[in-house]
Amino acid sequence: MRDLPIGFLDSGFGGLTVVRQSLKQLPNESIIYIGDSARAPYGPRPLVEVKKYIKQLTHFLMNQGIKMLVIACNTGTAAALNELKDEIPIPVVGVIHAGSRSAIKMTENQRIGVICTQGTVESHLYQTVIQNKEKNVTVYEHAVPEFVKIVEEQRIQEPETMETIKQDLFPLKEHNIDTLVLGCTHYPLMRNEIQEVMGPDVTLIDSGAETISEVSALLDYFNLSRTSDDNDKNPATQTYFTTGNGEGFEKFTQILFNQPDLKVQEVEIVGDELVDNSNT
Amino acid sequence: MRDLPIGFLDSGFGGLTVVRQSLKQLPNESIIYIGDSARAPYGPRPLVEVKKYIKQLTHFLMNQGIKMLVIACNTGTAAALNELKDEIPIPVVGVIHAGSRSAIKMTENQRIGVICTQGTVESHLYQTVIQNKEKNVTVYEHAVPEFVKIVEEQRIQEPETMETIKQDLFPLKEHNIDTLVLGCTHYPLMRNEIQEVMGPDVTLIDSGAETISEVSALLDYFNLSRTSDDNDKNPATQTYFTTGNGEGFEKFTQILFNQPDLKVQEVEIVGDELVDNSNT
Repeated sequence: MRDLPIGFLDSGFGGLTVVRQSLKQLPNESIIYIGDSARAPYGPRPLVEVKKYIKQLTHFLMNQGIKMLVIACNTGTAAALNELKDEIPIPVVGVIHAGSRSAIKMTENQRIGVICTQGTVESHLYQTVIQNKEKNVTVYEHAVPEFVKIVEEQRIQEPETMETIKQDLFPLKEHNIDTLVLGCTHYPLMRNEIQEVMGPDVTLIDSGAETISEVSALLDYFNLSRTSDDNDKNPATQTYFTTGNGEGFEKFTQILFNQPDLKVQEVEIVGDELVDNSNT
Repeated sequence: MRDLPIGFLDSGFGGLTVVRQSLKQLPNESIIYIGDSARAPYGPRPLVEVKKYIKQLTHFLMNQGIKMLVIACNTGTAAALNELKDEIPIPVVGVIHAGSRSAIKMTENQRIGVICTQGTVESHLYQTVIQNKEKNVTVYEHAVPEFVKIVEEQRIQEPETMETIKQDLFPLKEHNIDTLVLGCTHYPLMRNEIQEVMGPDVTLIDSGAETISEVSALLDYFNLSRTSDDNDKNPATQTYFTTGNGEGFEKFTQILFNQPDLKVQEVEIVGDELVDNSNT
């Protein structure tokens, strides 16, 4: 059991920012990732549809064999975390609780902003989780639907992008927040640009990075952590799947992780199943 | 179940630094604490004896009714965590894993120091846990037995204390560490003095503070977290016991938490049992 990989799923590229933290904080752990780029972005979809997709991705990862599941997607966490916790026999974590805890720890003026997708705003899960823990905090949830598209279409460096970011963050700047949760795993890829617009006095919270600390704690708690010795005998592996264009996903991931040999396999959506044709 | 307090145990005052973090990070949670001051310090005792005491304290807290147990004592964690995890039906956490994870995250030169009691050094649990996670880190474990006595005897402000701290930390300064784990829950009470001696470039890790982040994650994971609404209906409580001198313990705790009305009850050690005589 201990030697199995940790499973990560996301609507597309975003969850790779969570995997990046896993590779850094948990170097002895194998990972397996699936990004549902064929159906990204999840943000504008009804949560009930997102839940269906998350369950398909989960089923695929469970069939590959995993010891823990990370829903590396805020919209997916809002849609499916509670149900999945009851339905599958391994530990499941989302990204919203860890980000919320960290935001409460960091804020000093008790005013927290959350940027996220429309689906996550509609769930109000950040507001609920944060205020359940600390009712004196005011939470401003704000949808920035363009941001996921900017990342998925790899337009961060384009000249008009900075203007879009400024416009989309303007309402939050009015609220005098001191802490901003990057409530979508795509956003850490635009971290520098977001920090520049918000100014140096606003602390950005990367929910994905915080989630890996939680994963690490749970692996230790359940005696599922691999050790350096395990890794010497049986080196950690990385496996990536996408429902979308494998070549584009591979190129993006190779650059993000600075691993030019990294491979991404395409998976086909057939009815309610995801089918890995790479071995057939 | 959710409304039950979190139980904390320690050899004496030290675990109060972990409770302080709980009051800050988890304001909706009730706590119940027992400090075994009659038999403090634990550090110089054989681990098998410490394990026996920890089990007595655990039995006492379990009888009071708790939803989670925190061994807020590094020596106690080294002695008894693994056995208690198998023996009691509620989640148990120690302070060593959280401190180790945080140290690995913070170090840049891969040289970590740990100051702790003789018992914790002999267990080599910090070294084992850290190197199991990241074998390229060198860990220098160093016993500073005087420090617990300085805290328990409330001698931090005395003029000769600074000299003792300097002498006791000298061997670690030679090792060019960039991160120092305060591997005993008493030491955060001397944090400023330790930082002054180690210099501003060494990051101090408060294992207790990190442990509360883990407690928070586990409470969320097991759906055991109390909400602000719970707290409005049924305000969180604090209950403190000591096997030692109640008056001295009460005064110390009142000052530490700035709560002049805080009460501490004395508990008697009768054979293998701890007996609360306050209600008889």
